Amino acid sequence: MALGVLMALISYAMNFAIGRVVRAHKWLYREVGDGHLLRYLSWTVYPVALLSFSSGFSQSITPFSGGSGLPELKTMLSGVVLEDYLDIKNFGAKVVGLSCTLATGSTIFLGKVGPFVHLSVMISAYLGRVRAKTMGESQNKAKEIEMLAAAAAVGVATVFAAPFSGVLFSIEVMSSHFSVWNYWRGFFAATCGAFMFRLLAVFNSEQETITSIYKTRFRVDVPFDLPEIFFFVALGAICGVLSCVYLFCQRNFLRFIKTNRYTAKLLATSKPSYAALAALILASITYPPGVGRFMASRLSMAEHLRTLFDNNSWALMTRNSSPPWPAEPDPQNLWFEWYHPRFTIFGTLAFFLVMKFWMLILATTIPMPAGYFMPIFIIGAAAFSGAVTHTISTALLAFELTGQIVHALPVLMAVLAANVISQNCQPSFYDGTIMAKKLPYLPWIRGRKIGSHPVSVEHFMNSTLTILAKDMPLEEVIKAVTSTDVAQFPLVETRESQILVGIVERTHLVQALQTEPASWAPGQQCCLQDVLAGGCPTQPVTLQLSPETSLYQTHTLFDLLTLQTLFVTSRGRAVGSVSWVELKKAISTLINPPAPK
Amino acid sequence: MALGVLMALISYAMNFAIGRVVRAHKWLYREVGDGHLLRYLSWTVYPVALLSFSSGFSQSITPFSGGSGLPELKTMLSGVVLEDYLDIKNFGAKVVGLSCTLATGSTIFLGKVGPFVHLSVMISAYLGRVRAKTMGESQNKAKEIEMLAAAAAVGVATVFAAPFSGVLFSIEVMSSHFSVWNYWRGFFAATCGAFMFRLLAVFNSEQETITSIYKTRFRVDVPFDLPEIFFFVALGAICGVLSCVYLFCQRNFLRFIKTNRYTAKLLATSKPSYAALAALILASITYPPGVGRFMASRLSMAEHLRTLFDNNSWALMTRNSSPPWPAEPDPQNLWFEWYHPRFTIFGTLAFFLVMKFWMLILATTIPMPAGYFMPIFIIGAAAFSGAVTHTISTALLAFELTGQIVHALPVLMAVLAANVISQNCQPSFYDGTIMAKKLPYLPWIRGRKIGSHPVSVEHFMNSTLTILAKDMPLEEVIKAVTSTDVAQFPLVETRESQILVGIVERTHLVQALQTEPASWAPGQQCCLQDVLAGGCPTQPVTLQLSPETSLYQTHTLFDLLTLQTLFVTSRGRAVGSVSWVELKKAISTLINPPAPK
Repeated sequence: MALGVLMALISYAMNFAIGRVVRAHKWLYREVGDGHLLRYLSWTVYPVALLSFSSGFSQSITPFSGGSGLPELKTMLSGVVLEDYLDIKNFGAKVVGLSCTLATGSTIFLGKVGPFVHLSVMISAYLGRVRAKTMGESQNKAKEIEMLAAAAAVGVATVFAAPFSGVLFSIEVMSSHFSVWNYWRGFFAATCGAFMFRLLAVFNSEQETITSIYKTRFRVDVPFDLPEIFFFVALGAICGVLSCVYLFCQRNFLRFIKTNRYTAKLLATSKPSYAALAALILASITYPPGVGRFMASRLSMAEHLRTLFDNNSWALMTRNSSPPWPAEPDPQNLWFEWYHPRFTIFGTLAFFLVMKFWMLILATTIPMPAGYFMPIFIIGAAAFSGAVTHTISTALLAFELTGQIVHALPVLMAVLAANVISQNCQPSFYDGTIMAKKLPYLPWIRGRKIGSHPVSVEHFMNSTLTILAKDMPLEEVIKAVTSTDVAQFPLVETRESQILVGIVERTHLVQALQTEPASWAPGQQCCLQDVLAGGCPTQPVTLQLSPETSLYQTHTLFDLLTLQTLFVTSRGRAVGSVSWVELKKAISTLINPPAPK
Repeated sequence: MALGVLMALISYAMNFAIGRVVRAHKWLYREVGDGHLLRYLSWTVYPVALLSFSSGFSQSITPFSGGSGLPELKTMLSGVVLEDYLDIKNFGAKVVGLSCTLATGSTIFLGKVGPFVHLSVMISAYLGRVRAKTMGESQNKAKEIEMLAAAAAVGVATVFAAPFSGVLFSIEVMSSHFSVWNYWRGFFAATCGAFMFRLLAVFNSEQETITSIYKTRFRVDVPFDLPEIFFFVALGAICGVLSCVYLFCQRNFLRFIKTNRYTAKLLATSKPSYAALAALILASITYPPGVGRFMASRLSMAEHLRTLFDNNSWALMTRNSSPPWPAEPDPQNLWFEWYHPRFTIFGTLAFFLVMKFWMLILATTIPMPAGYFMPIFIIGAAAFSGAVTHTISTALLAFELTGQIVHALPVLMAVLAANVISQNCQPSFYDGTIMAKKLPYLPWIRGRKIGSHPVSVEHFMNSTLTILAKDMPLEEVIKAVTSTDVAQFPLVETRESQILVGIVERTHLVQALQTEPASWAPGQQCCLQDVLAGGCPTQPVTLQLSPETSLYQTHTLFDLLTLQTLFVTSRGRAVGSVSWVELKKAISTLINPPAPK
């Protein structure tokens, strides 16, 4: 509950602050006069300054604050430890940076879903630490991961005030399996967050009562004709194909930016300059008296969403009358922004889609806190965003946002069609980013072929173990410890038998070796047993693999239990170890077999 | 897709047939004249005959066809094998029995959700077997369980044409964790089912197009005032308390019926007589000219749902005019059935709730195929049914059924409030039935206390293993095999070392022992090693526990991997085994510690 309320407060406060900044920008743009140069400058300087500050500030505090954070969280939920990623000091950097990014409005065209999930998870980790400290409990990694899964739901729910899709979206994006316990906790926290978020809007007199954010209205009796179903599915398929194009372009452009000589140098030496440059390009294109006129660039992100959900046939409404282009967007008739007498509504919509397609790809390369879900949702709504993120709950999000669910079946069918295409052709936006950022991750085993492949642990385990035996002389122990940097050593009974009896943590062992040098008289044959007896704690081996365990089984184990390392024993003898590194290698070998030499 | 389409056809055909039977009953009741005796007989004989046939027919074919089937499926999904439960021969019994049960209409007041999940799972298991046979693949238990999880979603989706809540409800009810893969498959199958189900209604000219089943309409701008939220939550809490009362009464009445001398004897000797007796009681009470007049007993189940979702203030509408009691329900004004000039709407509603409460408990004791979700949903809608089943997705079901989602937040809060109370006080309807039916199951470990309790495998493992050693003489092997009936034996290297090297299946060993008696010349010391070399296959031990593994860890393993048995090794030596029986015992000891003697 604390998490939900806190996140709602942050979300609402951020929206409020951003609204003020955007209004100030609009005021400046309006008051600066009719001179084209001044107007152009007032339009572009704002986002350039905000983005370079956002990029510079957040990156100077922590390099972890860039991007949405969802790919990193996904790897964390799969059990990989990313040190400091959830540290509360990243919080300020992310909040300030994200506010600046969002304050640029639709010029840069970015959202806040991903960063809010990251913020929510940071707060939850912090609350967990505080709780553990006050209750005097030790921290529990499994519990922590459970908390994270619930926190992710809160992040989505407090952005859209949509608890159902918040929970489902976070589940689909973040993990490959989840427990029903987390799901309930997620629902509770997300409901608290969404309720608080909407309650604040009521208290601030923005709303009369708690309703959906983007209200629209459809006919209940005959919301659509039966043959329209076909067009829904076709639209879904088109969105699926386009999402593949988008994912392909996005991944390769990111790679290009990172490998191209000039951009790579610029990114390495001065991230704010790169951000400023990109912002200048994006802002110049969206300059309303210029090309921006044809892509409704004066609308904010929220207004874009409102026109998306506006249930009016614009084409019919403009057939006989041609509304004038107002001096500034008319809140009652936002869709006027989309109309141009010569281009017609369809022209501006098509132009908008084409331009935003590559502009969004450019915007995603800027190293600063920003979310990429909202722009994708505006461009292609439920089916496109579902295909890009490989999720189905975007359909539910559309229902919760609009308060209308009569199109449940056709929308779901469109999203499924889009997902079938994109999941078969491209990794999801988040998986693609994980690969591009070279984050550690455990690939999924897809399809029957690999599942039934007779690869077992003995084929891929790490068999060059540094084993500590109880009867090892101390010199050998020290040599073994210094020769490697693994965090855990398998402990065996004797050098001869190699029977695994426990695990020694590197830190404990080093501590014990450093604190007890006095008793090791030279000449006296001191062995590891003495160190262990002297107070170095060992851990029991609670789970062991066999060389015969199949790859599929091992993968399931690691995936379900979010394990770090397991030791492999054969007839009690320690013969190897498996971590996600070995697993990943084994799986990629299966997927892309090495070329025969 | 095949599963979805098949289930939709079955669901639609069953609805159609039931509709005809119900109409025939109505016709008979109308045409029989005004004589009270004849009317009473025509009202009661129908359900009595149908129920005794349903009970007798289905029980004569298979004892598994009774009840909803969800509790049994839940235990199956947790890894316990219930032989023959998914056999296709149960299918006919369940379909015919269920049709008869449902044809009694609201007299007996039962639904079809649970049995449809069971039917869907049966078909899916059958399709899986057909697929495996045609593809020449061997059956895979993990794959089978995945199929079952998806099939459960189809069952719910084809009853309510609600794919989202179908998937979520089946997840919440059936398993304690699930993989996102199953979730996607479930969505696909459920969407196919729901689409087909609604398409049939369009083709049959019942509907103009595909819409929600129970259409209603709320104001979009101000669906409710903010303070009403409090009453939503209060209503949820009341539903939570009532659900506890219901669950408590239901479980104890079931126990009473099974232990009471007369009813137990009746149930054991003649289930149809018991069904007929119960049907006679229920039908007599609902006789419309009698007490049934005050509980809208002339409405069918679907009509009950329609009046539930009817967005009209009945109290206001009846303030000035008192509608007459029509000769039969008026399809345009179904709510007239709820009105009585003296009782008023509130009187009949209260009477209905009180009467149906215990009548439903009586109806659940009848041994025949029937679902108990629908009546619970009619009595208390989302919050009550969510509390009784311990699920949250009933909220989503209400939205999908009505095509209205503007009340998302308050309904979700009511359901959460109801769930908090019922989950803390009572096992869910399904868990309660599992306990009452004494089905095998793995209890959940709830709360931190037990999770962090220092109980480890050595405290509860079964340490009286029947171990087979490779150097065991054959007489000893035979003695060991005949002395116990376990399905698997741990195989150790030598009697002295006890190092675990593999697993021998009982069936394989018995076969090998029976087929090779010729070579065992008397006097010649033949040992197990020879049998194994002679062709008895052994399986590798792919996963081992240690005596130090904690109860919590072991529980997580069994729960996530749906395991049957794991062997425990200490320094390579086989020292014990753990199955869900030991686990269950250990957990119940923790929850209810034995009284000190």
